[in-house]
Amino acid sequence: MALRFRPADASFYDMFSTLAAQLVNGAGLLNEVFTEGTDRAALADRMREAEHSADEATHEIIRRVNTTFVTPFDREDIYALASALDDVMDFMEEAVDMVLLYEIDDLPPELAEQVSVIQRCAEVTADSMPRLQSMKNLDEFWIEINRLENAGDKHYRRILAKLFNGELEALEVMKLKDVVDSLEAAIDAFESVANVVEQIAVKES
Amino acid sequence: MALRFRPADASFYDMFSTLAAQLVNGAGLLNEVFTEGTDRAALADRMREAEHSADEATHEIIRRVNTTFVTPFDREDIYALASALDDVMDFMEEAVDMVLLYEIDDLPPELAEQVSVIQRCAEVTADSMPRLQSMKNLDEFWIEINRLENAGDKHYRRILAKLFNGELEALEVMKLKDVVDSLEAAIDAFESVANVVEQIAVKES
Amino acid sequence: MALRFRPADASFYDMFSTLAAQLVNGAGLLNEVFTEGTDRAALADRMREAEHSADEATHEIIRRVNTTFVTPFDREDIYALASALDDVMDFMEEAVDMVLLYEIDDLPPELAEQVSVIQRCAEVTADSMPRLQSMKNLDEFWIEINRLENAGDKHYRRILAKLFNGELEALEVMKLKDVVDSLEAAIDAFESVANVVEQIAVKES
Repeated sequence: MALRFRPADASFYDMFSTLAAQLVNGAGLLNEVFTEGTDRAALADRMREAEHSADEATHEIIRRVNTTFVTPFDREDIYALASALDDVMDFMEEAVDMVLLYEIDDLPPELAEQVSVIQRCAEVTADSMPRLQSMKNLDEFWIEINRLENAGDKHYRRILAKLFNGELEALEVMKLKDVVDSLEAAIDAFESVANVVEQIAVKES
Repeated sequence: MALRFRPADASFYDMFSTLAAQLVNGAGLLNEVFTEGTDRAALADRMREAEHSADEATHEIIRRVNTTFVTPFDREDIYALASALDDVMDFMEEAVDMVLLYEIDDLPPELAEQVSVIQRCAEVTADSMPRLQSMKNLDEFWIEINRLENAGDKHYRRILAKLFNGELEALEVMKLKDVVDSLEAAIDAFESVANVVEQIAVKES
Repeated sequence: MALRFRPADASFYDMFSTLAAQLVNGAGLLNEVFTEGTDRAALADRMREAEHSADEATHEIIRRVNTTFVTPFDREDIYALASALDDVMDFMEEAVDMVLLYEIDDLPPELAEQVSVIQRCAEVTADSMPRLQSMKNLDEFWIEINRLENAGDKHYRRILAKLFNGELEALEVMKLKDVVDSLEAAIDAFESVANVVEQIAVKES
């Protein structure tokens, strides 16, 4: 336990919990891209709104950091955590946007597996944020994110090998690779979230 | 107004103004790529020189931060501002370089629109840098950059949709996409500049 | 010489030296991809192990920073140095992985030249790390890395021009470009290492 006592602004925990809950919502929208008969244009609009809300929540955290005298963790860790959470949403929105923009009709089923990984990452992240206050059982969080990231990496490599096996046209490969890379970037951003949380926990221990 | 008094080195404002003025020059060179009959090899040389000058100006700022006891803003904000300004130049130079390297003959007119956005970003950035000293009217700056970034994003998406509509050969798409992505990265770097300026202003208010 | 006296934990120098030595090993493995008759699957396994070891060494440094009261340099410089060294390994591993994953049979000889640049960067980096303790002759290090980065950049541009000259199929270009970009990113990460070292040296001077 750290010796310093911080009568810190408790609202930071709520703000991070809110932002992480938005990621669960965003990951659900991302998943709808794979549902037969989805109105993709309407879905992209809802995704854009979700991304906009996350932007505002992130901005609110950063504004609070800059104007609060005593913060519950080091300022740079709060920045890094807020940015990494916001990055997740940006990459999810990017993926949905590209499916629409490139008019991709056939999404390989392996991409839906990758989206399931993202949904699970969002859930464990949302579960962990309130625990930042007690600093209890946070190791379960980063261990699970690392496990999911490894699973996601295996999917990613299998998808790439399939994209480049010569069956698809080059232009189709380029389009799908952009989507796949956005999903991969979202998972990597969850890993950054877990790294920051681990760093916060080490400093406080 | 912050209570702390900083007898800070005023030359930082001049150094940032100089660096931003170099971006206006660089954006002008970038625009010449689209002028009929331009000697592109000569242009790429001038662009490389501009990029080299910006590197030196950035290096000078960072050296000054590291050797100055009292800085006008937090050290990490000075680093972040200098780096973001330097990134803009790097991406503009990259775009010119790729047009030459890939021997791209037909540049879609939509790219010229995107370059206009970059030129406007450079101008408002150069206008705002001297105002860092008085901290007055800086909100106009980041609001305008955000507006320009939104406009640039709409162009970017329209250009991508056109590149991938099946009319162009895959290799041509790959070349143009590299150029378009460099322009997009330059605009994103301007947005980072605006974010740092906003952060500095919030801390000082 | 800085006035402050830091009875700092000397093990940081050893930890950085260990991590940099792992890069020399990794660059050697990367070079084996170009050796006729290499068992690439076995090589990729060894590369993955090397990457895993570097991850652990990096993690160890960061854990030490977070739990040590007096560090030999600013904490953020230690983070930045460890991260940049770790990035080099990640990009080298990525390059090997892609050669295997994409089943690339013909690697252009220019790529081997680029790998030579990376090997040389790794050697001068490993040589320089122990000198962080005495702070002597570090300028030789960043000057040499900058020279190598310039050479690498010339190779990179020549390789890109060749990839896009129309002789290769689009899908083949995409595969090779991914490998080439990973090598380029490794060299850029060495440049980041050199920049951090220069920054540390300036602060201490």
